[in-house]
Amino acid sequence: MVDRMQLTSGPPPACLADFAGLARTALPPQVWDYVDGGSGAEVTLGGNRRALDRVAVLPRVLTGVSTPTLRTRMLGREHAMPVAVAPMAYQRLVHPDGELALAAAARAADVPYLASILGSTPIEQVTATGAEVWFQLYWLRHRSLVTDLLARVRAAGCRALVVTVDVPVLGRRLRDLRNAFRLPPELVPANLPGGRDDLAHGGTPGVTPVSASHDAPFAPALSWADLRWLRQRCDLPLVVKGILDPADAVRAVDVGVQAVIVSNHGGRQLDGVPASATMLPEVVAAVGDRCEVLLDSGIRSGVDVLRALAMGADGVLVGRPMLWALAVGGRPAAGTALSLLADELRDALALAGCADPATARELRTVSVD
Amino acid sequence: MVDRMQLTSGPPPACLADFAGLARTALPPQVWDYVDGGSGAEVTLGGNRRALDRVAVLPRVLTGVSTPTLRTRMLGREHAMPVAVAPMAYQRLVHPDGELALAAAARAADVPYLASILGSTPIEQVTATGAEVWFQLYWLRHRSLVTDLLARVRAAGCRALVVTVDVPVLGRRLRDLRNAFRLPPELVPANLPGGRDDLAHGGTPGVTPVSASHDAPFAPALSWADLRWLRQRCDLPLVVKGILDPADAVRAVDVGVQAVIVSNHGGRQLDGVPASATMLPEVVAAVGDRCEVLLDSGIRSGVDVLRALAMGADGVLVGRPMLWALAVGGRPAAGTALSLLADELRDALALAGCADPATARELRTVSVD
Amino acid sequence: MVDRMQLTSGPPPACLADFAGLARTALPPQVWDYVDGGSGAEVTLGGNRRALDRVAVLPRVLTGVSTPTLRTRMLGREHAMPVAVAPMAYQRLVHPDGELALAAAARAADVPYLASILGSTPIEQVTATGAEVWFQLYWLRHRSLVTDLLARVRAAGCRALVVTVDVPVLGRRLRDLRNAFRLPPELVPANLPGGRDDLAHGGTPGVTPVSASHDAPFAPALSWADLRWLRQRCDLPLVVKGILDPADAVRAVDVGVQAVIVSNHGGRQLDGVPASATMLPEVVAAVGDRCEVLLDSGIRSGVDVLRALAMGADGVLVGRPMLWALAVGGRPAAGTALSLLADELRDALALAGCADPATARELRTVSVD
Amino acid sequence: MVDRMQLTSGPPPACLADFAGLARTALPPQVWDYVDGGSGAEVTLGGNRRALDRVAVLPRVLTGVSTPTLRTRMLGREHAMPVAVAPMAYQRLVHPDGELALAAAARAADVPYLASILGSTPIEQVTATGAEVWFQLYWLRHRSLVTDLLARVRAAGCRALVVTVDVPVLGRRLRDLRNAFRLPPELVPANLPGGRDDLAHGGTPGVTPVSASHDAPFAPALSWADLRWLRQRCDLPLVVKGILDPADAVRAVDVGVQAVIVSNHGGRQLDGVPASATMLPEVVAAVGDRCEVLLDSGIRSGVDVLRALAMGADGVLVGRPMLWALAVGGRPAAGTALSLLADELRDALALAGCADPATARELRTVSVD
Ligand SMILES: Cc1cc2nc3c(=O)[nH]c(=O)nc-3n(C[C@H](O)[C@H](O)[C@H](O)COP(=O)(O)O)c2cc1C
Ligand SMILES: Cc1cc2nc3c(=O)[nH]c(=O)nc-3n(C[C@H](O)[C@H](O)[C@H](O)COP(=O)(O)O)c2cc1C
Ligand SMILES: Cc1cc2nc3c(=O)[nH]c(=O)nc-3n(C[C@H](O)[C@H](O)[C@H](O)COP(=O)(O)O)c2cc1C
Ligand SMILES: Cc1cc2nc3c(=O)[nH]c(=O)nc-3n(C[C@H](O)[C@H](O)[C@H](O)COP(=O)(O)O)c2cc1C
Repeated sequence: MVDRMQLTSGPPPACLADFAGLARTALPPQVWDYVDGGSGAEVTLGGNRRALDRVAVLPRVLTGVSTPTLRTRMLGREHAMPVAVAPMAYQRLVHPDGELALAAAARAADVPYLASILGSTPIEQVTATGAEVWFQLYWLRHRSLVTDLLARVRAAGCRALVVTVDVPVLGRRLRDLRNAFRLPPELVPANLPGGRDDLAHGGTPGVTPVSASHDAPFAPALSWADLRWLRQRCDLPLVVKGILDPADAVRAVDVGVQAVIVSNHGGRQLDGVPASATMLPEVVAAVGDRCEVLLDSGIRSGVDVLRALAMGADGVLVGRPMLWALAVGGRPAAGTALSLLADELRDALALAGCADPATARELRTVSVD
Repeated sequence: MVDRMQLTSGPPPACLADFAGLARTALPPQVWDYVDGGSGAEVTLGGNRRALDRVAVLPRVLTGVSTPTLRTRMLGREHAMPVAVAPMAYQRLVHPDGELALAAAARAADVPYLASILGSTPIEQVTATGAEVWFQLYWLRHRSLVTDLLARVRAAGCRALVVTVDVPVLGRRLRDLRNAFRLPPELVPANLPGGRDDLAHGGTPGVTPVSASHDAPFAPALSWADLRWLRQRCDLPLVVKGILDPADAVRAVDVGVQAVIVSNHGGRQLDGVPASATMLPEVVAAVGDRCEVLLDSGIRSGVDVLRALAMGADGVLVGRPMLWALAVGGRPAAGTALSLLADELRDALALAGCADPATARELRTVSVD
Repeated sequence: MVDRMQLTSGPPPACLADFAGLARTALPPQVWDYVDGGSGAEVTLGGNRRALDRVAVLPRVLTGVSTPTLRTRMLGREHAMPVAVAPMAYQRLVHPDGELALAAAARAADVPYLASILGSTPIEQVTATGAEVWFQLYWLRHRSLVTDLLARVRAAGCRALVVTVDVPVLGRRLRDLRNAFRLPPELVPANLPGGRDDLAHGGTPGVTPVSASHDAPFAPALSWADLRWLRQRCDLPLVVKGILDPADAVRAVDVGVQAVIVSNHGGRQLDGVPASATMLPEVVAAVGDRCEVLLDSGIRSGVDVLRALAMGADGVLVGRPMLWALAVGGRPAAGTALSLLADELRDALALAGCADPATARELRTVSVD
Repeated sequence: MVDRMQLTSGPPPACLADFAGLARTALPPQVWDYVDGGSGAEVTLGGNRRALDRVAVLPRVLTGVSTPTLRTRMLGREHAMPVAVAPMAYQRLVHPDGELALAAAARAADVPYLASILGSTPIEQVTATGAEVWFQLYWLRHRSLVTDLLARVRAAGCRALVVTVDVPVLGRRLRDLRNAFRLPPELVPANLPGGRDDLAHGGTPGVTPVSASHDAPFAPALSWADLRWLRQRCDLPLVVKGILDPADAVRAVDVGVQAVIVSNHGGRQLDGVPASATMLPEVVAAVGDRCEVLLDSGIRSGVDVLRALAMGADGVLVGRPMLWALAVGGRPAAGTALSLLADELRDALALAGCADPATARELRTVSVD
C-alpha cells in the first residue's frame, strides 16, 4: 500500500519536523491522519508542543566541555543517548518493513526499541534484529493470556516490560472517525495469540475509537492489583507508561516499577489532560531516585531532550517522528532521524555547557510565554 | 421557514461541534446569528471556550474502572448523566418541532429538559412528552401573573422552577441589531398569559436587544425579596440561573434554593463578565454542600463535562449545541447529540479512571495556557 | 477637504467601533492614519485594548435595579454620565464643523467637552455652544503667554483647566512620518496668541513628530514647580492629564489638583508604556478620595466604562470614537455616538445590578486572558 | 555579489525595522537568511522580541527635563549614547565596504564598534577609522595563537577585549542548512593568522553549523581557567559576551571582568534559552555595581534601549539592524540607523521624564501580556 518511499531529491532533512512534510505527501491522507491525529478537540495534542516551547533552559558557560558524551543508563543498561523509540502499533501500515526497520535503526543507533503489543511483526523477528527491545503490553482478556505472552516475550529476549496504563478505552480520535478509518485487512496484530480474530468485533483496537473497543482483548478494568500480580510474575524490569499524576507515580514506585513514563500518549487518549512536560517536574520530585522517569509526547528535537533532562527526566521516548521517517524512507530514513537527534542533542549539551546528560539534569529552567 | 432539515449525507457528526457547521448551512443567516451570537464585542462568548480549554484534568490510572456509570442525582432525582438541556426561547424558530423535539430527545436520553418561559409551545404539551421538565421563569410584570403561571406550570407537571436572574435587561446582541432581526410573526410565547400581545411594544423580549425591552413583561427590578416571596409560594425545587459572584450564590442558598446555575447566559447578556468556568471553583467552595451547583456557557463535549465535574460542578447545561442539532435534524439529531455527549462522557470518565461522576469531582485540575 | 460626510445608507451603527469603519472610508488615508495611529511599534496602542478586554467585571444579581441612573458628579458638577469628550487637536481636520459640532453634541448629551489648546476654533465660540468646557493646556513658551491664555479661557467661561503632562516632546508617530503628514495650511490653532506663526518652524505641534517640535510653543521643561505656580494663579478646578505612575498621582494631589486623568494619550506618546487600565487600580488606591480619577485610552463602549468604574475610576474620557463620528456625520453622528454610549452604559449597569455609577465602583473585577 | 546598494527612492526609514524590508530586497535570499535566521525552531529568536514587548516602562511626568543627554560611560569612557555596534562576522558579505563602513558610522555617532574576530577586514584598517574598537574574541586552537592575536589587537589600538562564551559549538541554523549556505570564497577571516586555511575542513565557522566545526580554530573546551589566564595576560578592559545565568555573571565578576553582555547571540546559538531581556534583571541584581551589564538580542528601537536601561542595563548592543542598514546603503545608511536610534532614545528619555540614561535606570517596569 505504501510504495516509492524514498528520500526525495530535495535537501536532506534539517530537523525531525522536516520528515513530517515528506511523510504527509508519502502517506494516504487517512493514514497520515491516523498517525498525526490526537483525540477530541486536540487541545492536549497542541498543548504538548506549547508546554515544551515554554520551557527555557539556562545554559552554563565556560564549563570546559568540548564534545559531550550522550551515553546514558536506562533500566540498568548503557545506551548511546537518553532516547528510545516509543511503542507504536502496526508499523507496517506506513512502510512494508515496519517494525523491522525501526528496530534495526534503533539497534544501529544503540537506543532501546519499544515493541508494541499491537505490532504487525512477530516479536521474535523484532528481537532478532539485535535491538534492545522493551515489550509494551496492553492488558489482555484473561490473565492466562498475559502469562502466555510474557513467556513468549521473555523467550524472544525482550529486556523490559512496559505496561501502558492510559488506554482503559481508546481515545476519541475524531479524524479517524470522520475518515471511517479501518486497518487494511492484511495487517494483523502478530503478537496476539489468536491473531486478528482475537480482536474485538466491530472495532479495531489501536485504531478505531468506537465503543465496541470495550470488548477488545485489553481489559479496561486494569488495576493496581493487576500490576502487583504482574510484578510478582515478571523478572524483567517493569515500566509503567502513561502516568501524569505524581500520586500515581508514587503508587507505581510502591509496586516496584523500575521506571515510569510520563506521557499522555501523544495527545491520543484523554483530550484535555495536561501536557506531559507540564507534569514532569512534579513527578520527578515525587519519586526522587526511587525509579527512573522517562517522558514522551511532543519530543521533536535535541533541544526538547535537553528540556526534558533539565526538568529532571532520565530520558525520552520519540513517537511520531519515527513513523514519519519510516514512512518516508524505511530503515535508512529512520537511522537518519536518530542520528539527527543525536547530533542535535550533542550540540544542545555542548551549548548548555554540559559534559553529559546527567549534568543537564542540574540545569535551571525558566518558564516563558 | 426551516425546511429540508435532515442530516446531510456526509459522515455522521463526530462531535457536537460538527452540528454547528451543518446548522449554519441549514439556517437562514439571521437565525444562525441569533443562535450563535453573544453580546457586545463577544469577549465573554469567546472567553467561555478559552476558560474551558485552559482547564486540564489530571487523570488517574489503574483504578480498575471498566465501564463507568453516568447516572447522577440532580435536584433529588436520578438521571442518565449529569447533563440537562438549557432553557432556550422559541425553539420552533429553528425547527417546526421545536420544544417538542428537544423535550422528547431529553426524555429518551433521560436528562432534564429546561423549558423556557419564552417557549413557542405550550408547557402542557412539553410535559406531555414525558420528559422531566424544569420550568424556567423570567419575572413577569405583576406578581399575580407569576402566581398564575406557577399554578399552570405546577399543574402541567414540571418538576422544578428555575429563575433566570441575569436578564434585568437584554444583552446588546450586535449581530441581531445589525440584522434588524425580528421573530417571525407566527412565533408566539405560548406560555405567557396574553400571548404575543403581552410582550412589549417595539421590542421582542428574548430576541431584540432594544431599549424598548425595558417595558417587556419581565420586570427588571427583580430582587432578593422577590426570590424569597417565590420560595414561600412554590413547593417545587427552586433553582437560580445566572450567578457568577460567589457572594450571590451564598445569598441564594440563604433564601433556600436547591441549586445555582453558574452561567453567563452563553455570553449573551453582559459582555465583559468572566467565563462561568472561571468562577465555578469559587462558587463551589462558597456554597459547600448546601446546594447543588450546575454550570453552563460553552459546554461542547464530554471532556467539558469532565472539566466541570473536576472543578466541583454537580452537572452541566448544554445550550446552543441542542439548537444546532434541532436545526439540522429535529428530534433524531437532538437524540444523536445527547448520545454523543453520553459516549464522550463515558469515555472521558473511563480515561480519567473514574467509576462515576461523583469520583470525577475528586480529580485534580491544572491551569494551562 | 472633507465633504459628503453623512451617515451612509447602511444599518445604523450598533456600537462605537462601527463608526471606525465608516470614518476610514470617509477620511483621506493620511488623516485616518493621523487619527488612528499610535507611536512607535504601537505596542501601547494595542495594549490599551488588550488590557481592557482582560478586565472581567463580576455582575451582582437580584439587586432590584430597574433603570439605573447614569448621573455623576465630576469636578463638582453633575453630568448625564461619567463620560467626557477627550481633548483633541484640530477637529476641523475631519469635519468642517469641527470643535463646534463635538461641543454641541457634548452639550446635548450633558457631558463635559474638553477643548484642546490646539483647537481649530476659538475657545469663545466653543463655550458659546453652551457646553461645559474644560480647557486643555499644553505649556507655552513663556509664563506670560500662559497667564494671558488663562485670562482668555476664564473669560470665555471654561469650567476647568486640564494640563496635559505627557507631551514634553511629541511621540514618534511612524504613520505620520511615513505619510509625511502635514496639517492643511488653512487649519490654525485658533487659541494660540500669534496664530499659526507662533508654532515652531519645521514642525507642526500636535501633528508631526519631528525633533523640530522641541521648539514648539509648549515648553518641554514643564515641572512640578510650574504646576504649583499654575495652581496658585488659577481659581478653576485643576486637572492633570497623562499620569501613569501612582507616585506622580500622589504628587499631583499634593499640589492640589481636583482630578488626575490616567492616560497614555491613546498610545500616541511614549510607546512601550503600560495600558492606562493596567495602572488605574494602583492610582486609585494611591490617591484615595483626595482627588477624582478619570481614565482614557482605549475606551470604546459602555462595558469599557463599567470596567473603568469597577476598577475605581470616577469617569472616563473618550477620544478617537468622537472623531470617527464627527468625520462620518458631524454633530448628529457625534450625538448618536454619545447616546449609544449612554445606552450601552445604562444596560451595562443594569446587567451588573448597579443603580448608578457609584455602585459600580464596588464591583469586583477578575483578570482574564 | 552585492551591488546597487543604495537607499531606495521611497520615504526615508521611520524606524530601524524599515531597514529590514529594504535589506531583504537588496540581499540574495540566502544571505538574508544567514543574517536574519536563528537556530533550531527559532523559539528564542521570536522570544527575544516578545520579552522586550512585554516590558512596559512607567514614565515620570513634570520632571523638568527638556532635551535629555544621551551621553554615557561604558568601560570607563564616555560615549554619545548607551549603544554599541554588536560584533558580527564577515560584514563584507552584505556590502563591499563591510567593517570599514560600520566602524566609520560608529565613529561618527561616537559609539563603540565591536570588531568580530571573524571580520573580513584586517583589524588595523578598522581601528584606522578612528572608531573606539572593542575586539571580540572566539578562542583559538592554541593559547599561543591567542597571545599573538592579543598583541596584534593591542597594537592596532583596540580599547577592550570581548570574549564570546556562547559558541562552544555553532548553533544549528536550519535556514543555512537548508540553503546549503557557504561563504563566498573571496571572503576571508582577515584577523586569523593563517587566513582562511586556518579554518576547519568541511565547515565554515561563523556560518555553517556543521559538526565539522568542532575542529574549527576556536576550541570548544574554553573554561573559566582560560578566562583567568586571559585576564592576567591582558591589560585591556575585559568583557564576557553571552551570559544568561546570573551565577555565571558572578563568576565572571570574580575573574575580574569589567562588563558582562547578557545575550543569547540574537537567538543564533542554543535555541530554547530564555530571552536575554528575561534574564537581565536577575543578572543586574546578582552583580550589583561590581561590573557593567550590557544587553543584546532583539534591540530594535530607542524604546527598547529605554526598556533595557529601566531593567538596569548600562547599555545595549545592536546587531542585525546594523547589517540591514549596511546592506541597504553602506556607511551613510548605517549612520542614519544610528542617528535614528539616538533620536528615538532622546525622545524616549524625554517622554519618560529622564534627564539622562542613569536616571532611566530608576524607572519602574511593569510586565504586560
Ligand atoms: C500511530 C501511533 C500508534 C501508537 N501505538 C501505541 C501503542 O501501541 N502502545 C503504546 O503504549 N503507545 C502507542 N502510541 C503512543 C506512543 O507510544 C507515544 O506515547 C506517543 O506517540 C508520544 O508522543 P509523540 O508522538 O508526540 O512523540 C502510539 C502513538 C502513535 C502516534
Ligand atoms: C438562542 C438562545 C436562547 C436562549 N434563551 C434563554 C431563555 O429563554 N432563558 C434562559 O434562561 N436562558 C436562555 N438562553 C441561555 C441558555 O439557557 C444557556 O445559559 C446558554 O445557552 C449556555 O451557553 P451555551 O449556549 O454556550 O451552551 C438562551 C440561549 C440561546 C443560545
Ligand atoms: C487626533 C488626536 C488628537 C489629540 N490631541 C490631543 C490634544 O490636543 N491634547 C491632549 O491632551 N490630548 C490629545 N489627544 C489625546 C486624547 O485626549 C486622549 O488622551 C486619547 O485620544 C484617548 O485615547 P482614545 O483615543 O483611545 O480614546 C489626542 C488624540 C487624538 C487621537
Ligand atoms: C550575521 C551575524 C553574525 C554574528 N557574528 C558574531 C560574531 O562573530 N561574534 C559574536 O560574538 N557575535 C556575533 N553575532 C551576534 C551578535 O554579536 C549579537 O549578539 C546579536 O546579533 C544580537 O542580537 P540582534 O541581532 O537581535 O540585535 C552575530 C550576529 C549576526 C546576526
